[in-house]
Amino acid sequence: MATDNELGFSKPDFTRRQRTGMSETVFCPGKTVRQLELILRRFREADVRVLGTKCSQEQAEHLRRCALPVVYDPISRLLYSLWGEPAKPCGRIAVCTGGTADVPVAEEAVGTAMFLGAGVDRFFDIGVAGLHRILSNIEDIRRADVVIAVAGMEGALGSVLAGLIEAPLIAVPTSVGYGAGFGGIAPLLAMLNSCAEGMTVVNIDNGFGAAVSACRMVRKMKAETTHD
Amino acid sequence: MATDNELGFSKPDFTRRQRTGMSETVFCPGKTVRQLELILRRFREADVRVLGTKCSQEQAEHLRRCALPVVYDPISRLLYSLWGEPAKPCGRIAVCTGGTADVPVAEEAVGTAMFLGAGVDRFFDIGVAGLHRILSNIEDIRRADVVIAVAGMEGALGSVLAGLIEAPLIAVPTSVGYGAGFGGIAPLLAMLNSCAEGMTVVNIDNGFGAAVSACRMVRKMKAETTHD
Amino acid sequence: MATDNELGFSKPDFTRRQRTGMSETVFCPGKTVRQLELILRRFREADVRVLGTKCSQEQAEHLRRCALPVVYDPISRLLYSLWGEPAKPCGRIAVCTGGTADVPVAEEAVGTAMFLGAGVDRFFDIGVAGLHRILSNIEDIRRADVVIAVAGMEGALGSVLAGLIEAPLIAVPTSVGYGAGFGGIAPLLAMLNSCAEGMTVVNIDNGFGAAVSACRMVRKMKAETTHD
Amino acid sequence: MATDNELGFSKPDFTRRQRTGMSETVFCPGKTVRQLELILRRFREADVRVLGTKCSQEQAEHLRRCALPVVYDPISRLLYSLWGEPAKPCGRIAVCTGGTADVPVAEEAVGTAMFLGAGVDRFFDIGVAGLHRILSNIEDIRRADVVIAVAGMEGALGSVLAGLIEAPLIAVPTSVGYGAGFGGIAPLLAMLNSCAEGMTVVNIDNGFGAAVSACRMVRKMKAETTHD
Amino acid sequence: MATDNELGFSKPDFTRRQRTGMSETVFCPGKTVRQLELILRRFREADVRVLGTKCSQEQAEHLRRCALPVVYDPISRLLYSLWGEPAKPCGRIAVCTGGTADVPVAEEAVGTAMFLGAGVDRFFDIGVAGLHRILSNIEDIRRADVVIAVAGMEGALGSVLAGLIEAPLIAVPTSVGYGAGFGGIAPLLAMLNSCAEGMTVVNIDNGFGAAVSACRMVRKMKAETTHD
Amino acid sequence: MATDNELGFSKPDFTRRQRTGMSETVFCPGKTVRQLELILRRFREADVRVLGTKCSQEQAEHLRRCALPVVYDPISRLLYSLWGEPAKPCGRIAVCTGGTADVPVAEEAVGTAMFLGAGVDRFFDIGVAGLHRILSNIEDIRRADVVIAVAGMEGALGSVLAGLIEAPLIAVPTSVGYGAGFGGIAPLLAMLNSCAEGMTVVNIDNGFGAAVSACRMVRKMKAETTHD
Amino acid sequence: MATDNELGFSKPDFTRRQRTGMSETVFCPGKTVRQLELILRRFREADVRVLGTKCSQEQAEHLRRCALPVVYDPISRLLYSLWGEPAKPCGRIAVCTGGTADVPVAEEAVGTAMFLGAGVDRFFDIGVAGLHRILSNIEDIRRADVVIAVAGMEGALGSVLAGLIEAPLIAVPTSVGYGAGFGGIAPLLAMLNSCAEGMTVVNIDNGFGAAVSACRMVRKMKAETTHD
Amino acid sequence: MATDNELGFSKPDFTRRQRTGMSETVFCPGKTVRQLELILRRFREADVRVLGTKCSQEQAEHLRRCALPVVYDPISRLLYSLWGEPAKPCGRIAVCTGGTADVPVAEEAVGTAMFLGAGVDRFFDIGVAGLHRILSNIEDIRRADVVIAVAGMEGALGSVLAGLIEAPLIAVPTSVGYGAGFGGIAPLLAMLNSCAEGMTVVNIDNGFGAAVSACRMVRKMKAETTHD
Repeated sequence: MATDNELGFSKPDFTRRQRTGMSETVFCPGKTVRQLELILRRFREADVRVLGTKCSQEQAEHLRRCALPVVYDPISRLLYSLWGEPAKPCGRIAVCTGGTADVPVAEEAVGTAMFLGAGVDRFFDIGVAGLHRILSNIEDIRRADVVIAVAGMEGALGSVLAGLIEAPLIAVPTSVGYGAGFGGIAPLLAMLNSCAEGMTVVNIDNGFGAAVSACRMVRKMKAETTHD
Repeated sequence: MATDNELGFSKPDFTRRQRTGMSETVFCPGKTVRQLELILRRFREADVRVLGTKCSQEQAEHLRRCALPVVYDPISRLLYSLWGEPAKPCGRIAVCTGGTADVPVAEEAVGTAMFLGAGVDRFFDIGVAGLHRILSNIEDIRRADVVIAVAGMEGALGSVLAGLIEAPLIAVPTSVGYGAGFGGIAPLLAMLNSCAEGMTVVNIDNGFGAAVSACRMVRKMKAETTHD
Repeated sequence: MATDNELGFSKPDFTRRQRTGMSETVFCPGKTVRQLELILRRFREADVRVLGTKCSQEQAEHLRRCALPVVYDPISRLLYSLWGEPAKPCGRIAVCTGGTADVPVAEEAVGTAMFLGAGVDRFFDIGVAGLHRILSNIEDIRRADVVIAVAGMEGALGSVLAGLIEAPLIAVPTSVGYGAGFGGIAPLLAMLNSCAEGMTVVNIDNGFGAAVSACRMVRKMKAETTHD
Repeated sequence: MATDNELGFSKPDFTRRQRTGMSETVFCPGKTVRQLELILRRFREADVRVLGTKCSQEQAEHLRRCALPVVYDPISRLLYSLWGEPAKPCGRIAVCTGGTADVPVAEEAVGTAMFLGAGVDRFFDIGVAGLHRILSNIEDIRRADVVIAVAGMEGALGSVLAGLIEAPLIAVPTSVGYGAGFGGIAPLLAMLNSCAEGMTVVNIDNGFGAAVSACRMVRKMKAETTHD
Repeated sequence: MATDNELGFSKPDFTRRQRTGMSETVFCPGKTVRQLELILRRFREADVRVLGTKCSQEQAEHLRRCALPVVYDPISRLLYSLWGEPAKPCGRIAVCTGGTADVPVAEEAVGTAMFLGAGVDRFFDIGVAGLHRILSNIEDIRRADVVIAVAGMEGALGSVLAGLIEAPLIAVPTSVGYGAGFGGIAPLLAMLNSCAEGMTVVNIDNGFGAAVSACRMVRKMKAETTHD
Repeated sequence: MATDNELGFSKPDFTRRQRTGMSETVFCPGKTVRQLELILRRFREADVRVLGTKCSQEQAEHLRRCALPVVYDPISRLLYSLWGEPAKPCGRIAVCTGGTADVPVAEEAVGTAMFLGAGVDRFFDIGVAGLHRILSNIEDIRRADVVIAVAGMEGALGSVLAGLIEAPLIAVPTSVGYGAGFGGIAPLLAMLNSCAEGMTVVNIDNGFGAAVSACRMVRKMKAETTHD
Repeated sequence: MATDNELGFSKPDFTRRQRTGMSETVFCPGKTVRQLELILRRFREADVRVLGTKCSQEQAEHLRRCALPVVYDPISRLLYSLWGEPAKPCGRIAVCTGGTADVPVAEEAVGTAMFLGAGVDRFFDIGVAGLHRILSNIEDIRRADVVIAVAGMEGALGSVLAGLIEAPLIAVPTSVGYGAGFGGIAPLLAMLNSCAEGMTVVNIDNGFGAAVSACRMVRKMKAETTHD
Repeated sequence: MATDNELGFSKPDFTRRQRTGMSETVFCPGKTVRQLELILRRFREADVRVLGTKCSQEQAEHLRRCALPVVYDPISRLLYSLWGEPAKPCGRIAVCTGGTADVPVAEEAVGTAMFLGAGVDRFFDIGVAGLHRILSNIEDIRRADVVIAVAGMEGALGSVLAGLIEAPLIAVPTSVGYGAGFGGIAPLLAMLNSCAEGMTVVNIDNGFGAAVSACRMVRKMKAETTHD
């Protein structure tokens, strides 16, 4: 039982890149610092590049003390391995936020997309309550291959943007807000019920997931250029 | 017990106008056609003007067969008495909708506001997915004393409008939508969590309540002109 | 007020194709048969092609009696105009379902995607309870530019598929199920919380929205081929 | 990208006063102390008066250490800038609470309203369980141009008050309560479903939003006096 | 198995009166007309008096066609057997409603209480939006041994009454309302969170349960008089 | 695509018996009468025995008109094929209900279990409000290999039974109840939170699923007897 | 404004005893230690006896440091004043719990009831999973005038007890449990949906409210003995 | 009252093993360290073996300081008594997890099952996003008498496994996840709505309950072998 893998608690997936075209990632919450260390050592031994998500300060410090060559960004809570082969460059992604409090989730998307090879432009704090902020940036946003809209509170940013662009738009609800925001339910429902077309949605605060999906899209776009 | 009033099931309130400055209204659902008839007869005997809300086709037809002088609008489901003294004219209210499916709720607001003496301008089907529809109407909307924004789905209309005007805005979520719209919960939560200031909210599909509040506001505005 | 448009209740959007690259669509629920007829006539006069969604039998029959040149599919509840210029062909989309009861939502996606110019392959009734059905079709599914996974009940189809392919995957929860399925909440939450990467989600039963997003993706892919 | 504004994470809105007639405000939660400092410095350089809401002790202390001329009230968690031009005086607002535990939310309304130029009267701890407390204050409450009713638990204060006054009433549910109060859902639903007319609702614990809406109303009332 | 009882689908409980002091009752929904008939026949053979609750028109008509000596009230949907020994008279119960639409639930309480031997006074349509209606009836309400408050919408009637009387109060939320009333959740939560003391709550629309509990109370009161 | 199977909308699973040891079943809701007919014909051609669940009257009548040799039970809404090889007999299952209204769900469990080869004893209407009904049947219930407890309302039957027996217990919440029963949520949550050990839970109204799981258990028990 | 009372934040209610027959109580959460101190001093000056509920350790310690003559029980979190006139003795109340973890809520009921003059018997840890514990205590429980059943998890204690006694029963759901207990929602719903008659419900963890209602009942019972 | 048991707050159940065939267990949360100590001493005096569940570090340390012969595992939070008679060996249970973060809940199942006499095989981190991990272990999993599937996030592990095995499967949703996982609601609903047959469900994070039910099953299987 569980004999094909030395780590009883985990089965690192070294073939995902072949299977899905994407680098490996590790979801850090719920793992002890020791489990996380062992998983990363395994990836390092295989020289497989890996990205850790929602990594805590405590986890990052443990890894630093273990002298594992990783970099940690406390805003996005992403952990980057310094080993393995970097991703090939692919298209451009625009990451927009409704407000400043949405920035940590947006930075998770930014960091993940760049790790996977995409170029990223940031359009932060352009929420719908001050419409001129969207309108003055819309030409730049239109240049992106895919747009990610990160917003809490009423989550209307995606609806307004999706009606103004041709690219696919991925909406990320955030837990920013209070009271009847219910930790992100309000923007999640708003985004799922958008009257604007061309928008899909990921989990609350899931900047990572939005970026991976966006990169699947841009990689397909570039792939088509070559072999279609 | 219950002897101060001949209608055991109901206590018509003939003094509300003195107490709150508003004409009488009757919430029709859950009343039998016979109960509704008796309540309206009582108002007619007192020559007190009255508005029926959320009145069904069946209720309206019964009253017509009784030869009660009332008018029924099947879109807004409002029932107007033809007796009693009309309301004094007061300010202007703009009633906006996100889509065509929101029109019945908006018409409930329009009819109620006009019954209470307000002038009304309609701006229908100007939802945020086609932003040019708001922008091309915004100068007219700004002329209103109070703005009512009626929207289902993601309910973003109010947030965008409130950031563009000086007047108070009342948002009405509607049950238009499906799936994770949950009968109006999605726009209700979006409106409660709006990042735009100057917006208050009423119950799902409550065009009536929005109009009464709007009229309280415009009546105060006009009252101020005179006796302040 | 509302004078720039002869239809007081609706503002048909003839410029969406320029703005977002997509043909026009009309959300039919909540519109009276007469409103729907007038909206379609306007599109026909402008010779702008249009797709009606979630159209009822009653609405479709009224339009047929008006002799408007439209085609109605009672499974997907889509209404196709026979006028205007067809969409240019773009890439291939795979539409998969967990079960037979998910077929109407899947057909909404299929019909929408074909209306917008995409080629579609159907993989129906391949739910995870009989895993061999996915495994025996996976090579064909991998050929698609974008995959749409339509599933009710526990909604696990998307998670299993996303781990086996490189293309972006759009998951559509359906209201198929009973009891604690809560009209589609169970698969919606499952899809939002998927441990598989590369998946985004649309509203419950929103096959239409999934197809529009998928077409934005494939159009970008083809666009890249040409002008990138 | 994001080049029109030196703060990448934020786009301070210096023109809101022209657009909506209201002073600037900053929602503090989710901003780092350094971000908040930079935003306030930008407002100070422009000599634009600004109000910070839901500001934490830690944020306020950082700003004090930076020697920014601001005042912080730990009850309402409001942060007032000492620069810029004060608001012009406008009408009177009555702020009522059901209990003592609702006072922090009520003080947020009081402080915001005074910052925006309104006069405020406080009627605290007059909940419906001891009806004599409302009845003995009702004449004073009736003198207000707008009434704000702040209540947790069953949130009945607004319903009782709205039936006794002519002015518009804004109800603020609070998270006061426990068990099936669900952090303010109970009073929120009660207020949305009020059988009393003339009442609109804001988010749970949103004393700030109630005050801004109330000030929009009283400013319109005074404006009408002058130019109507 | 199931051989100790001739009705395989049901085990009529002829000893409840000894065990709990109350007459028998039958919850009618979900029973076929034939099952209901057989259960009632069994009670009649035993000459045990029985009350049917939430009985449909169809069920009542079937029983009438069977010539079973029962009386059916379509408002309260109660079904009374005409056999067996009537309950001994006990104290007085006041049944109050917020509005006219709450009357069917209130009549379920009235009919049940009378079936169990209590005297009942009705105080209907005395909701809190017109406070004078409560205040003008409060002296009569205070004469009751137990008060039942039936209300939908925001459900504030119980809170106001409980603060004005000495007797125990049972609150019955009703499904009257719409939108964010959620079929009675709003008044249910309001009643559970009441700041007024001395109030307990039963299920939404459960006039029957309120009456049974009230009768347990008044029977204990009278019992005390005699044998304490 | 979809070419390995003549039914585009469905992939009948003829190997489930080998894989999971169970006969085939078809979930009928959401299938057109024609789809259902084609699926059953396919099973019949293969002479594979099949059980249809939650089959509507309309579906059953269509199949009867097609002269397919099936039997339909309108109480349990089960549809039995008359072809194929019957299941081998296995152990005894006790199916208990709290009330008479739970009988249709219980009969779904009974019919399914018998189709799969189990013997069944019925203990209906033994809910906890009349505890003597459980206590007088408990010795018979203890004889079962597995116990299924079907209950709506507060769903307490499982908790009381599980504390009195040694066998595994499967609890089935039903949608019987009203108001705050929320279509079966109340008993579902009660069963999931039971303080009694040895109890597992299935979906609301899922008598079928409970029976399949029970049969997996008893088949394993008998299997052990033979080859362990 | 607020001039009839020297405490701007609170209006102590010295006449509740005349109005409702009950001593005064203070809900402690949300009050600063200083506010609580001032309120209690006011009661002490008036020599009006008072009970504090849900009082924190920190609040109790502050009052002790102020040398106010109060007693604090950390289990029930009740705070008793040592001044004023004790309540007159009234009937007997049985307080039962399902488990040991429910004891703090039960002790809140016990302490409140004794403060209000009732005699109390405790029956703790008699939950339905071990039915013999109820059956061996039932004769003693039957001696009470009112029974309070405190239970978390599936909350079935009340249903079983109510079917075995004649007295009114008040059920108190507790937040004991985890996972799908949702902080007390599971037992709350179970109790509201009980198939047993004669049971009413209070808020989650509201031992206090149950005791006040129980005391209203027993005081009426004794009152009847004297003057009926 | 409560005199048959020296511990007023608790009634240890020494006869459960006779009644249900299982050893005793104590649910630790909500018990003070002193209460827990007294309960365990009582079991020790009776030499009855006992398992403590969800025991906190603080509780375990107190018991260690009391020199009670117990062993504590901080991962599973299980507390084992070292006295009393061990359980007789029974069949084999497979415990599977979707990810590493599910391990603590899985270990609660493992430890409980072993305490009750079962043999256990662990299959951890075999979630559906990397399907090869299930497929490479399925032959080993098929050898188990009962399978327990522990999974958070979208909870699809059970559905995939149940379609591949003959044994009964118990699914345990975990609170692993974030955002719209809602502390385990997402996998709970997914598991309840599984399209795979033969699966039952326990409460969120209830590894203990799954193991007890699994052991009831395997004990019955072995019992059958002997005396059937």
